[in-house]
Amino acid sequence: MVTKDWVIISTERARRPEEFRQTGDRTADILPAYDPKCPFCPGNEHMSEEVMRVPSEDGGWRLRVVKNRFPALVPKGERVREVDGLRRRLTGIGHHEVLIESPIHNTCPALETEEEMVTVLDTFQSRGRALREDPRLEHIIYFKNHGVRAGSSLPHPHGQLISLPVVPHNTRARNDEARRYFDDHGTCVVCEMLDAERSSGERIIAENEHFVALIPYAAYSPFHMWILPKIHRSSFLEAPAAELQDLGALMRNVLRRLYFGLGDPDYNYVIRSAPLRDDRSAHQHWYVSVVPRVSQAAGFELGTGMFINSALPETSAAFMRDTDPQL
Amino acid sequence: MVTKDWVIISTERARRPEEFRQTGDRTADILPAYDPKCPFCPGNEHMSEEVMRVPSEDGGWRLRVVKNRFPALVPKGERVREVDGLRRRLTGIGHHEVLIESPIHNTCPALETEEEMVTVLDTFQSRGRALREDPRLEHIIYFKNHGVRAGSSLPHPHGQLISLPVVPHNTRARNDEARRYFDDHGTCVVCEMLDAERSSGERIIAENEHFVALIPYAAYSPFHMWILPKIHRSSFLEAPAAELQDLGALMRNVLRRLYFGLGDPDYNYVIRSAPLRDDRSAHQHWYVSVVPRVSQAAGFELGTGMFINSALPETSAAFMRDTDPQL
Repeated sequence: MVTKDWVIISTERARRPEEFRQTGDRTADILPAYDPKCPFCPGNEHMSEEVMRVPSEDGGWRLRVVKNRFPALVPKGERVREVDGLRRRLTGIGHHEVLIESPIHNTCPALETEEEMVTVLDTFQSRGRALREDPRLEHIIYFKNHGVRAGSSLPHPHGQLISLPVVPHNTRARNDEARRYFDDHGTCVVCEMLDAERSSGERIIAENEHFVALIPYAAYSPFHMWILPKIHRSSFLEAPAAELQDLGALMRNVLRRLYFGLGDPDYNYVIRSAPLRDDRSAHQHWYVSVVPRVSQAAGFELGTGMFINSALPETSAAFMRDTDPQL
Repeated sequence: MVTKDWVIISTERARRPEEFRQTGDRTADILPAYDPKCPFCPGNEHMSEEVMRVPSEDGGWRLRVVKNRFPALVPKGERVREVDGLRRRLTGIGHHEVLIESPIHNTCPALETEEEMVTVLDTFQSRGRALREDPRLEHIIYFKNHGVRAGSSLPHPHGQLISLPVVPHNTRARNDEARRYFDDHGTCVVCEMLDAERSSGERIIAENEHFVALIPYAAYSPFHMWILPKIHRSSFLEAPAAELQDLGALMRNVLRRLYFGLGDPDYNYVIRSAPLRDDRSAHQHWYVSVVPRVSQAAGFELGTGMFINSALPETSAAFMRDTDPQL
């Protein structure tokens, strides 16, 4: 794939889409709509340090951004790099913010309204635009962990944003590959891939005016999906409101298919945008990656960085395409 | 670290070693020593296609190598690469073998004898030496998944070996970094790192004549350990018997510390060896990586390839060093 990683699409151990259906209870069915002990529920606003909020008409809030109480990084001090023999150390400058996406304790993106989904994306973008003014920062990552298998420790629906004083090696390596392709062909590799996928159609799940949702040709894991902007831009932070509106609609559409088609599996979504100081180049293309946690990476994946996918991308895409999002 | 990846060692959310202790039952306590329905238990040998066995004195076996019934890859046909626009496809040539490490259903490496551990390593090596004769193969990975969180689907103790028609991108990228270091310094980066770690001692867990077990300076996850040969070799397949004996002893020592110190957490171990057609070069250094599954990678890790480690390597190493392996 465009990352140069190989994926083993295992036909010998291929499973039918229905076999990935989760059998456990859906979060919405076992949790209450309000939990007085939850730090993200209304009434407990004093338990977190607020960065911003989107007010509701009744004087409360629709969404809050708060500081993570146990941040991976903190935005104080200077960015200092120490070189000590083979070891490199960089002060852990950065932000770790939590985006409480609803006052309702037991909801999730699949059950939220389109307006709520778009508000989450708008908020991610406005926080990103504010943080990129900090010259110590190089990169920002926007993501959500839905469910315990996806690494979530609190069930109240929330997204997260982490800013970094460095560009991750993995991001740099992908960008290098994309730039090599651009230098050779004069075009963005993601735009080319999108054209080819739309012509074929066999891995497409759904699309609207500005976005396409598909399962990549070499998907790492079952039902791994990409939601790609049709208009080439390197940075999520530059997407205009009309595009975020369309992205929210398509993300909700796809997450509802996942919810109803596979029984609310745990998943992560990540917004992959260009590094802050290199976000004008023609070879980078921002997108959203959705990774359902319906299989478990094991020793082979740890040892090789390669993945074994036991679901055929074309079959998974057809299943998702045929699932009613119940809009 | 030597892979060029950055790791966030999170002091704000650091947890004490004891907090990673598992609270569930140990496999050995809840499973029977023999399960008539298990395909790997004695009496069910007809359920798998045997590749080789190590006989026991009573006419049975101590260890069997069998073909995986649902292989990720199969060793038939020619290696054919198709290039179709942006897409690359390679026929899935390769071997997927299972190494049943004991006739006992409910044991695990921590509870096996040193001789059993060494027999596993010997067998991995002899299978690797046999398979490298196949010119269609480029790489072999040897690994074990212990427990469900580590991706194991059958509790009967077993390791796995997968041969590949391609060198994984991740392996290639690490080798490129190591070669760059060698070209610049004239030394193996792993040998240099090992010297520095042994001088400092603060991240060392245990060592014997030929191997050192330590927690890397930039460990990806809590209690992530490396077991490194002191004698520089690029390939596991070239290690002589005396070294495998020492590796078995040290792996068992370390896995027992994990078992008793953290309550039998799930883990993966992987033997990382040089690619088959490039296993003489001075910059590569084989080793064993042990990854306990005591934390969960989430959206941040998926989106950046970086890791957040909430355990300080020095504290984790001291804890492991002070844990009695009860040899």
